[in-house]
Amino acid sequence: MRPNLTPEEYINGILLQDRNILSKAITLIESNREEDEKLAVSILEACIKQNKSSKRIAVTGIPGAGKSTFINAWGKDLLENGKTVAILAIDPSSSISKGSILADKTRMDDLAGHENCFIRPTASSNNLGGVAKTTRETMLLCEAFGFDYILIETVGVGQSETIVKNMTDLFLLLLLPNTGDDLQGIKRGIMEMADIILINKSEDDNIMASKRAATQIKQVLHLFSTSEKDWTTPVLNVSALHKKGLSDLQQQVDSYFLKMETTGFIGFNRKQQDNYWFEETIQQALLQTFSRDKNIQTVKKELLKKLENKEITPINAAKLLVQKFLKYK
Amino acid sequence: MRPNLTPEEYINGILLQDRNILSKAITLIESNREEDEKLAVSILEACIKQNKSSKRIAVTGIPGAGKSTFINAWGKDLLENGKTVAILAIDPSSSISKGSILADKTRMDDLAGHENCFIRPTASSNNLGGVAKTTRETMLLCEAFGFDYILIETVGVGQSETIVKNMTDLFLLLLLPNTGDDLQGIKRGIMEMADIILINKSEDDNIMASKRAATQIKQVLHLFSTSEKDWTTPVLNVSALHKKGLSDLQQQVDSYFLKMETTGFIGFNRKQQDNYWFEETIQQALLQTFSRDKNIQTVKKELLKKLENKEITPINAAKLLVQKFLKYK
Repeated sequence: MRPNLTPEEYINGILLQDRNILSKAITLIESNREEDEKLAVSILEACIKQNKSSKRIAVTGIPGAGKSTFINAWGKDLLENGKTVAILAIDPSSSISKGSILADKTRMDDLAGHENCFIRPTASSNNLGGVAKTTRETMLLCEAFGFDYILIETVGVGQSETIVKNMTDLFLLLLLPNTGDDLQGIKRGIMEMADIILINKSEDDNIMASKRAATQIKQVLHLFSTSEKDWTTPVLNVSALHKKGLSDLQQQVDSYFLKMETTGFIGFNRKQQDNYWFEETIQQALLQTFSRDKNIQTVKKELLKKLENKEITPINAAKLLVQKFLKYK
Repeated sequence: MRPNLTPEEYINGILLQDRNILSKAITLIESNREEDEKLAVSILEACIKQNKSSKRIAVTGIPGAGKSTFINAWGKDLLENGKTVAILAIDPSSSISKGSILADKTRMDDLAGHENCFIRPTASSNNLGGVAKTTRETMLLCEAFGFDYILIETVGVGQSETIVKNMTDLFLLLLLPNTGDDLQGIKRGIMEMADIILINKSEDDNIMASKRAATQIKQVLHLFSTSEKDWTTPVLNVSALHKKGLSDLQQQVDSYFLKMETTGFIGFNRKQQDNYWFEETIQQALLQTFSRDKNIQTVKKELLKKLENKEITPINAAKLLVQKFLKYK
């Protein structure tokens, strides 16, 4: 039996910046036990009422783009400038052995153990929706705790970047100094989401290639993008390894937040995001109840067979199934 | 009272290529009357059992790309080569007055009234899902009727192109001979869907610009695309107005279908599409029942207010709402 604190103890602990209690509250949020859920909800609701605001930043890039090294380098700068930083991750595929940033502590030497830095690995979860919910709620706790920056790392190869886009204010995309075919690794939609693009590993022999890549990416962005928030995505050359180009980045980040706070975009965007999570969770919860219903799944299999045999149209099959589900629920 | 035919009369009429009865069957499918729905389902199910196969082709492009003129020109070629052609449209925004292709008969002079050509406007509908369902089912009737080609036109600016992608074998994208900024009008995801890209209006003063556009688009495609079906999207210069470049197009269409039938992609893809429509309709039907429930919508409004006031998290609000819905259903 784990002895739980009272809701007040959790909430006060977080507000008083007790890292131990923050960790415990996150564990509670990650829990699947029903009695934990109720407690977690009351803590979260107390936290969001605090109305504190961290800079919520997504850090995305293909595997190998150097996200850990980058977070280490930029995080160090932030800490040296007196900022407090929390680092979270959305990585549905990660387990400790698969080289998730957070397991990969060797690359985050400058941050681990720093009193103003909080690093929290994603609890492994069976589904992306679960990871997203946990990460988002962890972010809300960290915000109530009072971190200046919350960096949420994700691998930009699947759907997780849409999720992280929907919980952050600024979307940073890390690319490598390759041009042409190598852009294939990154999906177009992800490029479109980026508020700032960094060509990492702009160092040594890569410098020329890196500049060419920046030019090419700017061209691609120019071909396509129309920004609803009146922001031209800068493409910067950085070397996380040699800690170069980070002051340019900081300048862009600062001017982004200055502008988006002035125009009211941050607040507007967060409200949109709240609505997104509300609608998204309604859909998920409905579909989950549906798909976990064993009776319905048996009928579904029969219908899929009929569909295969062209005895029924997909639309009619779906309607029959939903009617059945709603009738006996 | 409209005197309905019996299911057998509809089905036999369609199989015997009675255009009058085909039209009546489509009207039945478009109907919202409950007694019509049952009849429509039985006709559809008889139709899909026929196992006939038309070439299902999506024709997409931004407004002004010349879709009607193109369909007229290519359709004429097809008819002259002894093919039969049905032309449908998915256009959620269209009404007769808004210049939908099908209302725009002046541009389809060569097709209208031809005995081997069947043109059917979209019935105006209140939602995209409804239009999609109707168009897809109309396509299935046309297929049972035995058309060689079914062209489904849609405006490539919204979500309708995803829908049309999910009901066709080949996706044709029409662009204009503009480069650079003008690509902005077309979303990246749509470019990715294209199996063949046509630069239309490659005529007169446009010829050079048109060739430059083709080169540029090939570069953009090269930067990004990886095709799961081992097909390199050709970019062709055509002039629908002067009926030029259409034999190149026909060659590409033929080699596409030859290849995709040989590899089994067409059949595989159609099964995937059936599953897509099945799953999609399940979701839609569930969410529709939910959103049409007046009690639930009242509670939802209260929860949105709490959300606005930060009294509840979006995830918790959603869960409460779904629980309520499923409890009393």
